[in-house]
Amino acid sequence: MITFYYNLAPNPMKVALLLEELELPYEAVPVDSRRGEQHAAAFKALNPNAKLPVIVDGDATVFDSNAILLYLAEKTGRFLPKAGDRARGEMLSWLMFVATGIGPYSGQAVHFKHFAPKPQDYAVERYDFEAARHWGIVDARLAERSYMLGDEYSIVDMAVWGWAGRLPFVMGEDAWAKLPNVKRLFDAVGARPAAQRAEALKGRHSFKAEMDDEARRHMFPATAKPAA
Amino acid sequence: MITFYYNLAPNPMKVALLLEELELPYEAVPVDSRRGEQHAAAFKALNPNAKLPVIVDGDATVFDSNAILLYLAEKTGRFLPKAGDRARGEMLSWLMFVATGIGPYSGQAVHFKHFAPKPQDYAVERYDFEAARHWGIVDARLAERSYMLGDEYSIVDMAVWGWAGRLPFVMGEDAWAKLPNVKRLFDAVGARPAAQRAEALKGRHSFKAEMDDEARRHMFPATAKPAA
Repeated sequence: MITFYYNLAPNPMKVALLLEELELPYEAVPVDSRRGEQHAAAFKALNPNAKLPVIVDGDATVFDSNAILLYLAEKTGRFLPKAGDRARGEMLSWLMFVATGIGPYSGQAVHFKHFAPKPQDYAVERYDFEAARHWGIVDARLAERSYMLGDEYSIVDMAVWGWAGRLPFVMGEDAWAKLPNVKRLFDAVGARPAAQRAEALKGRHSFKAEMDDEARRHMFPATAKPAA
Repeated sequence: MITFYYNLAPNPMKVALLLEELELPYEAVPVDSRRGEQHAAAFKALNPNAKLPVIVDGDATVFDSNAILLYLAEKTGRFLPKAGDRARGEMLSWLMFVATGIGPYSGQAVHFKHFAPKPQDYAVERYDFEAARHWGIVDARLAERSYMLGDEYSIVDMAVWGWAGRLPFVMGEDAWAKLPNVKRLFDAVGARPAAQRAEALKGRHSFKAEMDDEARRHMFPATAKPAA
């Protein structure tokens, strides 16, 4: 039985999706980051980075959502391209594009746009541009193929799906109009029974909803201040 | 023969190190990002993200430095932990920690500290804190073991080494004093003949050295402006 430490942010949701696609039995353990539960010593013994998600699978502990996607896909041999250097290189390249580009730039765009305590024009401008640029590359790729690696749904699509759900929050209300192919993928993945089971996690445990001073202190220790 | 598209930034240097460790024959092709060569259509056909490094290996094209490390290590079966879920999960977790944490936060700390056109206190403060926090996690891990995964040198150490060389630029001149275990790893890797051969790339081709308006326009299209 896999133990899945999670909250409702995009990165844990990707892992929920894959667990459901694989129909693996798992126990979902909520860790409420707005209450600071990620800083507990017992949790940091699993992930010294104090972030969600983490899985424990027998004697293996795996953190970082993209590491977990790759770990579970390899372990089960599913949602990966067929063998061969070309397909393996393509999969790793696009998974890392999501891990090091889509995720960090989308996350920082959200931070500076929504949570920074005062206007930060340069930083907001930089992340708006970079988030739009990265998502534009995904959209262009999806204009020419059904899924990120071609005809087959893979862990790269799951990695994209995680952040795609936040696109209006990341880029503004017109995000979907600018990214029609991402929208098509997001809807196609969202229609899968596994995605609906993953989304159902949102009703299973309650997480602190308020982004107040307490939440900011736990989540943004660098710069925690009351909002302006 | 592998074709290795590179410049002298931390990410391509990680791949140079692994190519040298593996003693694989490769052709190094310089792509001068301060002159905008990464935006050429022929290069973007290899990596639509217009970034270095990229390798072409037969019919396989792989971009993103951490994807390339994993691809080459798997292909050769070297610099990876022994088989087993626990070791595989640990390797993937730490490689992704470097890919999604160390790299992006170090890179953005450098951007806001050195290249942003006017003081950006909040952004600088955020990235100073996050870069120091991520590097602190690496340092604590290295206080208890020789290499990131234990007794054996692996691709995770190569991924760390890439950015470690820029630590005084990322965190300030006292960075090494704060991170003695990272310094020990950096020196240990740097003493390897492969690291010295990788460093020798710095004399092999000439790259534009000036970070002037042209360079800023090519490298920071979001916000290219003359420096204040």
